[in-house]
Amino acid sequence: MDMYDVITRKKLGEELSKDEIDFFIKEYVKGDIPDYQMSALLMAIFFKGMSYRETADLTAAMAASGEQIDLTAIKGIKVDKHSTGGVGDKTTLVVAPIVAACGLPVAKMSGRGLGHTGGTIDKLEAIKGYNSELTTEQFVKQVNDYKLAIVGQTGNLAPADKKLYALRDVTSTVDSIPLIASSIMSKKIAAGADAIVLDVKVGNGAFMKSLAEAEELANCMVSIGEALNRRTIAVISDMEQPLGSAIGNANEVLEAIRVLQGNGPEDLLELSKVLAAQMLIVGEKTSSTVDAYKLIDNAINTGEALDTFYKFLEMQGANINDIDNLEQVISNNTERFKICALATGYISELAAEQIGRATMLLGAGRAVKDANINPFVGVIFHKKAGDYVKTGDTICEVRYSEEIQLQSVVSVINNAIKITKNVVQSQKLIHKIITKK
Amino acid sequence: MDMYDVITRKKLGEELSKDEIDFFIKEYVKGDIPDYQMSALLMAIFFKGMSYRETADLTAAMAASGEQIDLTAIKGIKVDKHSTGGVGDKTTLVVAPIVAACGLPVAKMSGRGLGHTGGTIDKLEAIKGYNSELTTEQFVKQVNDYKLAIVGQTGNLAPADKKLYALRDVTSTVDSIPLIASSIMSKKIAAGADAIVLDVKVGNGAFMKSLAEAEELANCMVSIGEALNRRTIAVISDMEQPLGSAIGNANEVLEAIRVLQGNGPEDLLELSKVLAAQMLIVGEKTSSTVDAYKLIDNAINTGEALDTFYKFLEMQGANINDIDNLEQVISNNTERFKICALATGYISELAAEQIGRATMLLGAGRAVKDANINPFVGVIFHKKAGDYVKTGDTICEVRYSEEIQLQSVVSVINNAIKITKNVVQSQKLIHKIITKK
Repeated sequence: MDMYDVITRKKLGEELSKDEIDFFIKEYVKGDIPDYQMSALLMAIFFKGMSYRETADLTAAMAASGEQIDLTAIKGIKVDKHSTGGVGDKTTLVVAPIVAACGLPVAKMSGRGLGHTGGTIDKLEAIKGYNSELTTEQFVKQVNDYKLAIVGQTGNLAPADKKLYALRDVTSTVDSIPLIASSIMSKKIAAGADAIVLDVKVGNGAFMKSLAEAEELANCMVSIGEALNRRTIAVISDMEQPLGSAIGNANEVLEAIRVLQGNGPEDLLELSKVLAAQMLIVGEKTSSTVDAYKLIDNAINTGEALDTFYKFLEMQGANINDIDNLEQVISNNTERFKICALATGYISELAAEQIGRATMLLGAGRAVKDANINPFVGVIFHKKAGDYVKTGDTICEVRYSEEIQLQSVVSVINNAIKITKNVVQSQKLIHKIITKK
Repeated sequence: MDMYDVITRKKLGEELSKDEIDFFIKEYVKGDIPDYQMSALLMAIFFKGMSYRETADLTAAMAASGEQIDLTAIKGIKVDKHSTGGVGDKTTLVVAPIVAACGLPVAKMSGRGLGHTGGTIDKLEAIKGYNSELTTEQFVKQVNDYKLAIVGQTGNLAPADKKLYALRDVTSTVDSIPLIASSIMSKKIAAGADAIVLDVKVGNGAFMKSLAEAEELANCMVSIGEALNRRTIAVISDMEQPLGSAIGNANEVLEAIRVLQGNGPEDLLELSKVLAAQMLIVGEKTSSTVDAYKLIDNAINTGEALDTFYKFLEMQGANINDIDNLEQVISNNTERFKICALATGYISELAAEQIGRATMLLGAGRAVKDANINPFVGVIFHKKAGDYVKTGDTICEVRYSEEIQLQSVVSVINNAIKITKNVVQSQKLIHKIITKK
């Protein structure tokens, strides 16, 4: 088999065989196919696409390219949840303890993030003492005993994806649906998921800007999951404005706790419940959505979800006193600056992308790999899109640590806020739920 | 300026600026743009194309990437001729002495070839003593004194093209009209041409299989030439069957001499006259095609073209005795095998591509760079497409040196020959002549 022929066939729009896909992934990881041939193939895939069958084969090949986590020692169906990334998205911190409290084992590996805020691990590490590095034995035991553990990605999961992603990043071949879908799914499968719930974000602050693109990605990932015998459901959720009120690592943990206390923002609660319900369904805790919502409400109302979260944090070394006083800890470590409405009217836009960029500029996220993040900085919204404000009302508070950063951040956030005279329709949060066709 | 942005813009189908094109050629030759970014750009160009303006800028940037030959010491307009390559194409050996005899200086640099037979230099080197390496002073003096010199490509002409071509060759990005056109034209321009006549081959034995593709390439090259102030004309000629009767280096030289003696195959004579006429026109020896043909016929009929060819060969060290006895020399160095008609009827096909492949298998051409070629082997056709044959008539003779090669060659040639019961229309040789719009 020859890489030149593989490139030519894809360039001509032909469907690559499983053997061809296995070949180019294996040889590329070994270093026997050079980057310049792979980037030509990636660009050909950008233009000619891949069938669902090809994309599933690519995913399987990438998942098999390195270590594959074996979670069979954990009893029950291991459901993983993945978000394509949005501003203020802390749903994992809400959903994981809810479904764990409902009896579903959550054995989660999370990454650190590039972008506006950190990944789930960065958020949890905002809590003093939190240890994201468990041994496999500790990880398995904790999930079997307490249903929930969240650790950093260890080992050499899907090295083909890592190597391909680095190449895509410098050759303008990131924005290809089959390449995005296989990248996400290969990591989930290598991490040992039996079933997968995907949160595909759409809108200004998401990678997918249009509903059509988001649906295409969601359908592709669901088809990959099903082809590889993992029940997979994708929820398409809105990312025009930030999710919830808080952005920034410690601030997001605090908000997640408030939701579990029955005291959080409505949009975050709603999306968390939708995702949790889908997890309970693919995890076979129930086959009825109505039942799933009952289980979820019960887990929140009885405090079991909150207890599960605390227990999990305690087991992973977090300082519980620190959690109970998180708001104070954040205050002690930051200054506040209020951003006020410059007009009277309805908020028509809180552009998530710019707000995300602003929080990154504050130090909440990483512009480059291995950059340090500040766990306490962030932005807290008092008003959201659709709200009525009068000139001078506080729209949000910036929690910053260095004045020099504040200046650019304030203007970026100001530009992200639009106020109109007319009543604004509230934005739909859940656009679609995509299941196997 | 950033290569990532250049790739993205081309991927989106945008037109690159002259600055962007200069940037990526310059930095790529310096080694500051890696192959993997360039191959992604090449694949994007394959899909999105380039405007004539972009292609002309690319050509100019590649021509300027290395040494540029200065032919101003040669009096008159220096017209270069280029063929996109076909089987049995020895027109340079006919055209060059004709136009030189008409007073046009021919200062030709030729390559060695990859493929079915050698390049012009390989053909000439089939003659004992022929020296393709003249100093610049010798080259200039010979053209000024005798109007004709043909040397091997020296120096570092268009290194950007060399580097890009090597990359295209392994990334399946050869077959892109703007990339083919700029590659050809950059070398002609770096080699100092004032005007250019192109022979764009079309058909089974050519790179361009359809007339539409050939026209696209011809139009593109003419537009590049004109944009860069070189009068350029492209002749689109047929390459369904081999040109002339002889294929193989020494055999082709012999056939060229026969044409100059007024004794060669009609198709080769016809194409040579068309190309020579266009050279005389862009070289401003005449502005009328009728006049051009008169000059050409005169050069042949008076023997001046033949004398010019001999004088040129003598000046470059060729053994004239060897030339006069070329047929004997070939016979002394080869065995002969006749391939006969297996049916009675009209020859409907002498598939040039397969016949070319057969002569390469005989050792007349190179499968890989730096391979040795045998100057004497080849195939001589006694019949051409359209001819009537009876079973057992000789269609061609194979001149071979090793029996082991003969076996596969015979079956390849056999498969290339088709005989039908019905009268076959003779194929059109000259499809179009493309000039500035």
